[in-house]
Amino acid sequence: MTVLVHSPATLSNLGCGFDVLGLALEAPYDAIRLHRTDEPGIRIQHLDSYNLPTDPAHNVAGVALQALLRQVPEQIGFDVEITKGIKPGSGVGSSAASAVGAVVAANALLGHRFSKMQLVDFAMEGEAVASGARHADNIAPAMFGGFTLVRALEPTLDIVALAAPPLWVAVVHPQIEVKTSDARKVLPTAVPLGLAVRQWANVAGLVAGFTTADYELIGRSLDDYIVEPARLPLIPGLAEARVRALAAGAIGGGISGSGPSIFMLNKTEATAQAVGDAMGSVFTELGIAFNVYVGPVGTEGARVIHEL
Amino acid sequence: MTVLVHSPATLSNLGCGFDVLGLALEAPYDAIRLHRTDEPGIRIQHLDSYNLPTDPAHNVAGVALQALLRQVPEQIGFDVEITKGIKPGSGVGSSAASAVGAVVAANALLGHRFSKMQLVDFAMEGEAVASGARHADNIAPAMFGGFTLVRALEPTLDIVALAAPPLWVAVVHPQIEVKTSDARKVLPTAVPLGLAVRQWANVAGLVAGFTTADYELIGRSLDDYIVEPARLPLIPGLAEARVRALAAGAIGGGISGSGPSIFMLNKTEATAQAVGDAMGSVFTELGIAFNVYVGPVGTEGARVIHEL
Repeated sequence: MTVLVHSPATLSNLGCGFDVLGLALEAPYDAIRLHRTDEPGIRIQHLDSYNLPTDPAHNVAGVALQALLRQVPEQIGFDVEITKGIKPGSGVGSSAASAVGAVVAANALLGHRFSKMQLVDFAMEGEAVASGARHADNIAPAMFGGFTLVRALEPTLDIVALAAPPLWVAVVHPQIEVKTSDARKVLPTAVPLGLAVRQWANVAGLVAGFTTADYELIGRSLDDYIVEPARLPLIPGLAEARVRALAAGAIGGGISGSGPSIFMLNKTEATAQAVGDAMGSVFTELGIAFNVYVGPVGTEGARVIHEL
Repeated sequence: MTVLVHSPATLSNLGCGFDVLGLALEAPYDAIRLHRTDEPGIRIQHLDSYNLPTDPAHNVAGVALQALLRQVPEQIGFDVEITKGIKPGSGVGSSAASAVGAVVAANALLGHRFSKMQLVDFAMEGEAVASGARHADNIAPAMFGGFTLVRALEPTLDIVALAAPPLWVAVVHPQIEVKTSDARKVLPTAVPLGLAVRQWANVAGLVAGFTTADYELIGRSLDDYIVEPARLPLIPGLAEARVRALAAGAIGGGISGSGPSIFMLNKTEATAQAVGDAMGSVFTELGIAFNVYVGPVGTEGARVIHEL
């Protein structure tokens, strides 16, 4: 039995919602092909050129599958083929996509015996290998699609999956490296209470905007007063990209994850295209290579697209 | 022309949403009778025993009406009769109710020429007299009813009015004084980033819970990690009242405004009654006099109930 899974890129933080909010894209995506075998163990092949580890103990998909297999009494194994469409380190949930895609595929091969929340738990083991910490801010949207809140990790994992209104996303990925450790290092350890209040007012506005499909409210609420100002120096062109994106009609946006990708939300595909071009022009002028992705919000998240 | 307005008590902060979230009750309420006169000026009578100032420049309703009259070209005045059903200083928006009720009444007498947002602006002038600061966290729910977010005061006042699902509120008001200045003084000036993140995760959960009528999510999300711990010592019985309220079936709750009132949200009237009794028992044992209010969320906010 073999299944092929489409597992999408995701935006975590989503402006003001540092560490808790996320949004699924439809593309780019990782394609994960899983074949169930009677031979125990996990054998991984990468059909891309990113030179990621194929030892299951050091591969995010491998570690996630190992966590899943510990809950499976049958003696089985998996042959795994990963074609990464999401560049590692770009800030759009590359490792989460591989981890989620792998466990979604395995669950299909096991008769869908695990809930999505259980699959999140397995995938978080994989994410921990990539980032050193169990977190779900990219895993949640990759698993559920749409707009997600990770309300709590402890004592019980609490994920709230919410529908997102139709939105088009433009993402620009400048080819610079922002290490997650550096992106963490610049964060303030404490926040003035008044600023924290302004931030959670925006978080409230963003959730209200998403749940009521109020685009103007979403736009007013995206601003991040705490994390983006600290990370601004790590991403050259960010301030100017925002100015040009808003001028081109974007609703609003910010840093995707810990960067360096920058996302903007838009009402229409045409606007998203124009916004992607506008952001790209900044990096052309800076002499920094970049990719632009334009596509709709992914309402479904990771899913089986082929079974044989 | 005379109108009578019903202007309800309100819960501000609402657990985790310090300074930004609010919820309207249906009762207790202030009754505001306004009579339009050709004689300029504002004449205030209080038909209650709270001994509040009747000089319009020092009365919250008077100051709000003065702000409104500055936008009215006609030479008119108002005779004002206020019957306060909401005890001043109880923490359920007493001053906001009087200010909102007065401007809603005046607007009815002026052919509804002002928007609710303009009325909020006038009422905030009154609130500033009572508390020393322009704020809208009680004014917004008193004006719009239901569940409200004050996303920003500056540069533009941004209030998001959202429907609340059917909920019954139990409020206990222990007869102790908590000065707003003391309640402000105990607040931390800065918050660890990790705690701020947990707080805005709850704010997001609370807004999602209200907008999707998910009572369990509302219950999980109400907890306030920042303000309530700081104010706990100011309100004897608070911790025990919460324990007994949850045991009696409350969804969750916290300090109302800056206290001393404590609110709990409930799915049914019967549960709210039991929760009110359970909270009251704590203050009986402590030898502290108290009042209990039980009623539904107020979906309408301040409104004209009689015209002659």
